[in-house]
Amino acid sequence: MSLVTETRLRVRYAETDQMGVVYYSNYLVWMEVGRVELCKAFGFNYRDMEAEDGIYLAVAEANCRYRSPARFDDEIVIKSWIERAASRMVTFAYEMRMADSGRQLATGYTRHVFVSREMRPAQLPAKYHAMFGLRS
Amino acid sequence: MSLVTETRLRVRYAETDQMGVVYYSNYLVWMEVGRVELCKAFGFNYRDMEAEDGIYLAVAEANCRYRSPARFDDEIVIKSWIERAASRMVTFAYEMRMADSGRQLATGYTRHVFVSREMRPAQLPAKYHAMFGLRS
Amino acid sequence: MSLVTETRLRVRYAETDQMGVVYYSNYLVWMEVGRVELCKAFGFNYRDMEAEDGIYLAVAEANCRYRSPARFDDEIVIKSWIERAASRMVTFAYEMRMADSGRQLATGYTRHVFVSREMRPAQLPAKYHAMFGLRS
Amino acid sequence: MSLVTETRLRVRYAETDQMGVVYYSNYLVWMEVGRVELCKAFGFNYRDMEAEDGIYLAVAEANCRYRSPARFDDEIVIKSWIERAASRMVTFAYEMRMADSGRQLATGYTRHVFVSREMRPAQLPAKYHAMFGLRS
Repeated sequence: MSLVTETRLRVRYAETDQMGVVYYSNYLVWMEVGRVELCKAFGFNYRDMEAEDGIYLAVAEANCRYRSPARFDDEIVIKSWIERAASRMVTFAYEMRMADSGRQLATGYTRHVFVSREMRPAQLPAKYHAMFGLRS
Repeated sequence: MSLVTETRLRVRYAETDQMGVVYYSNYLVWMEVGRVELCKAFGFNYRDMEAEDGIYLAVAEANCRYRSPARFDDEIVIKSWIERAASRMVTFAYEMRMADSGRQLATGYTRHVFVSREMRPAQLPAKYHAMFGLRS
Repeated sequence: MSLVTETRLRVRYAETDQMGVVYYSNYLVWMEVGRVELCKAFGFNYRDMEAEDGIYLAVAEANCRYRSPARFDDEIVIKSWIERAASRMVTFAYEMRMADSGRQLATGYTRHVFVSREMRPAQLPAKYHAMFGLRS
Repeated sequence: MSLVTETRLRVRYAETDQMGVVYYSNYLVWMEVGRVELCKAFGFNYRDMEAEDGIYLAVAEANCRYRSPARFDDEIVIKSWIERAASRMVTFAYEMRMADSGRQLATGYTRHVFVSREMRPAQLPAKYHAMFGLRS
């Protein structure tokens, strides 16, 4: 469970707002980018889980604390890890920093529940248990 | 075919960029808002067409000419109409203006093809023909 | 301080994702739409505060709990109110429901600090105090 | 003027819509990502041009032809080049393909005018002329 991934991205012009900094909802998009990468590092692919198993990770809660602003063309590093996992839900945590200076930009978490295509609560298939650090 | 709808919306902070004006891709989102309204005025619902008939309007081309910038909190009027329709494709046209001054902001069009859920070309079901000004 | 505004909006196609529901970061955009409306109801305009006083509301924290999914073309009601206000920061709270059924979609809050154009902490000008329920 | 850059990016979940493919306005965001990279390859930085010279590239027109859909997690290659440049305007062209199969996704162009901070037409400073293939 101690796996931590680092994902890099560069701030897009589209992500800025008239305050000259990154608009606040975009940090949740970046969390998604980090989360997808983390899942891949665990050996499971979001896309396959959706297509083959009909299991989706529905977001139950999202939280972000904004420490200092990011600007256009800044290179960002997103650290992602799993904070807690159970057979019906999982919490991911994130830390975003400037790639060059290491200045912290934001921290946050997202809590997810496993759901079926019809958005009903579902249990994580056994084959994914080990990846999430769960015993079958 | 001469139906023209007017849709109003207010510029969101999220839609601005660091230039202090609306980021250019958002005009395509506004075109979609106008298009959905126009379809409703024609008596057909995008949502139902997708859910009941499995017919989707895939975009084949989008064009926008930016005349003057829109800013946060501006009220915008989107005029939408069908420029051309055939059994396999339809072209919508748009004009966006400031609600108060009438200043023109942008003009554009989107060309669409009817496709199935699997993204294969499809024919518009006969029941929608009249709406698009087509003979069955 | 007990002012509560209700803002209505219709879910855009652009706001959905491949799960067929509204992508989670868009709720933060809707919170902004509600917040701007609430500020206007208090008699102060975001836009003017930025342009005339050089005071910006920088987001320090955002939180959203997702209760049930919203879908394309759903009409949403956003309730917004101020939960706490002080001379250097303000917390807005939100509740989002389906306009027709009243089904709760999400609840959340955003915490803001007043900053100058240079993103340094600033104090809210006295003329805005009454609006935020502060004594001068 | 024959410089062509290739930029890679991976489709974000946020960029998909309920049709299960990338929402059409996002291609304009990707064009921006390609354009910024191309400008850097020419040795000039968007960010510096805005900050130091007060010159902005305002979009006058955008066009995109959608050839085949892109999906979540696809890796995309954006080819960007300058199609035409003059002292007051510049046209960028783009081609987007799947990184693995080479399948063409979209082609397009954006036409820009140089403007001042106040959004008035401006001339490109002489120091940038060579980069855009212009004689001073």
